[in-house]
Amino acid sequence: MAMKVTPWEVSGHIDYDKLIQSFGTKHISSELLKKFEKEAGELHFMLRRRIFFSHRDADWLFERYDKGEKFVLYTGRGPSGDTHIGHIVPWIFAKWLQDTFDCEMYFQLTDDEKFLHDDNLTADQTHKYAYENALDVIALGFKPGKTFLFSNFDYSKTLYRIAANVAKLTTFSTAKAVFGFENSTNIGMVFFPAMQAAPCFLPSVLKNKNVPVLIPAAIDQDPYWRITRDVADKLGYYKPAAIHSRFLPGLQGPESKMSASVPDSAIFTTDDPKAARKKIMKSFSGGAGTLEAHRKHGGNPNVDTAYQYLYNVFEESDGKIKDIHDAYKSGAMTTGEIKEMLAKKVETFLKKHQENREKARKHLDKFLLKD
Amino acid sequence: MAMKVTPWEVSGHIDYDKLIQSFGTKHISSELLKKFEKEAGELHFMLRRRIFFSHRDADWLFERYDKGEKFVLYTGRGPSGDTHIGHIVPWIFAKWLQDTFDCEMYFQLTDDEKFLHDDNLTADQTHKYAYENALDVIALGFKPGKTFLFSNFDYSKTLYRIAANVAKLTTFSTAKAVFGFENSTNIGMVFFPAMQAAPCFLPSVLKNKNVPVLIPAAIDQDPYWRITRDVADKLGYYKPAAIHSRFLPGLQGPESKMSASVPDSAIFTTDDPKAARKKIMKSFSGGAGTLEAHRKHGGNPNVDTAYQYLYNVFEESDGKIKDIHDAYKSGAMTTGEIKEMLAKKVETFLKKHQENREKARKHLDKFLLKD
Repeated sequence: MAMKVTPWEVSGHIDYDKLIQSFGTKHISSELLKKFEKEAGELHFMLRRRIFFSHRDADWLFERYDKGEKFVLYTGRGPSGDTHIGHIVPWIFAKWLQDTFDCEMYFQLTDDEKFLHDDNLTADQTHKYAYENALDVIALGFKPGKTFLFSNFDYSKTLYRIAANVAKLTTFSTAKAVFGFENSTNIGMVFFPAMQAAPCFLPSVLKNKNVPVLIPAAIDQDPYWRITRDVADKLGYYKPAAIHSRFLPGLQGPESKMSASVPDSAIFTTDDPKAARKKIMKSFSGGAGTLEAHRKHGGNPNVDTAYQYLYNVFEESDGKIKDIHDAYKSGAMTTGEIKEMLAKKVETFLKKHQENREKARKHLDKFLLKD
Repeated sequence: MAMKVTPWEVSGHIDYDKLIQSFGTKHISSELLKKFEKEAGELHFMLRRRIFFSHRDADWLFERYDKGEKFVLYTGRGPSGDTHIGHIVPWIFAKWLQDTFDCEMYFQLTDDEKFLHDDNLTADQTHKYAYENALDVIALGFKPGKTFLFSNFDYSKTLYRIAANVAKLTTFSTAKAVFGFENSTNIGMVFFPAMQAAPCFLPSVLKNKNVPVLIPAAIDQDPYWRITRDVADKLGYYKPAAIHSRFLPGLQGPESKMSASVPDSAIFTTDDPKAARKKIMKSFSGGAGTLEAHRKHGGNPNVDTAYQYLYNVFEESDGKIKDIHDAYKSGAMTTGEIKEMLAKKVETFLKKHQENREKARKHLDKFLLKD
């Protein structure tokens, strides 16, 4: 299946090298990783494993940092439904960045975009999801007082004025070329890239000085930063830096999608832990068909969902993940065992996350920017 | 010069019948005028003289009115500079409508549009003009408590959400066809029609029930209402009704434009009354070249600026304007006399208006909607 990667659709077999080439971003080099390690004192497993694999201007960001200019983080979520594990990959990394570099974090909830894009969603629905999804962000442990979440609808007085500055410098032609817009695209979607660009300049507007911004996000969001970077100079702001993650596969295999309309396709943060366990047990396996064949030929961790979830999210130890990889590949570890291992970790995660989520509900207001 | 009428450019000789045909609006018929007179008790001179000459659904509006449904008014101003006499023609009429039908009036100041459209204007400038122009509206005597003015930048939390509903139903294709947008148009301008449509539904949103809206405005604004009317049904709102005025010519003659960058082209509400008098004295005249020739051949009121300003704005009495017309046409009244007549009226108007304008400055907040 041909690869398609846009902010609204990711499908097919993803060739990450090709994405770097076509998007015009850069590989995260060993040199950059060394720099990262020097500044951070350690490397997050998502960097060690190149789950974050591409960037724009991260080297420039460290240059500013070395000169004493602190950077802030910006990422976001399109609130079209419940949060799943795929969504939180960049957020886990962003939390580490916040803890490590003591950064402020700006988090955009694009309830406008999801309403404009999806014929089946009302503005009330996306607006409600925005604040439900916000709980998942806060539940991960972002710092109050340093973490600012906003629904586009509820912060549009501030955002629209910044977005107008971006929009004035962005022609329909450019937006068409970058996002594949067509004549049948609605004019809200045509304008929306300016709304997603706005938070790149928001910290500078709020602090009334130029502030470096780093965006940790999945690589499908990169087209927005291309537009933003094009206009930054003209507006007198720094170009935002970005660091891009790979996609977590759906539970139904390497090229499967996670979708709110297919409950078994993903683990949602609001899933009952027992239900999540069941989903994992049914998930696509890289094991051989029978136990006998598995013992003889081994499993394929590259396509095994349970292994991929451990590798990308739930097993931080490089030593342990290598042991699991080797045991599964050799056939010493069975599909059942690797699924059990993931299920335990996911159950533990969900229980704690859901507790934190309900606590967050009480403190939500402390984290919100509203007009 | 070929006629061009868009929300951003009016030029050439205006053929109003042709405009009605190409825009798909309706002439104000004698029957409709009778209806108007019956409801209002009298007819404003701008109706009697067909300065307001075209409409959409005004007959429908009176049907609702007869059934006890009050309508509200909506008009606006693109704050790209100081207000001139041309701008206030529809406002004078709107004030009469408010007084006569006891309507609420919603007044949009499109500081976003003027910023997005004009390379030479900053957002700070258009935002400042918005509130300066607002003073001119209030100075005309609109009722406090029934008159609501808003800058798009300052009311965008409310407007953007309504606009998103309009935008979702409006394709780039449609906007392109209606407004002549091109690939080089910036994405802010592409979205803007949704922002200008939003106040058509604002009263219904604020009152949480369907409210009929009448828009008194110059006919160049009609494309916006076409877009709005297309989506109204789908959103469950009444289509806005509209009543359209002709354009007041610039001081330099029938096809001349009023422009803030050419001070002698227009009388601005902030002009010193003596300076306004000088402009009138220099204005394009329909008189014959010499007094002798004028006495013999008479003047042409159709192209005479002073006469046009009296007819369209400053002389409400049909009897008096007929006398002026006839005397000027016959040559009995000279160019100097007709200019003097206008100058006196304009001086009186400006003195009072400027006093009211400064009073309005103190009470501005009472008239504003802000998020």
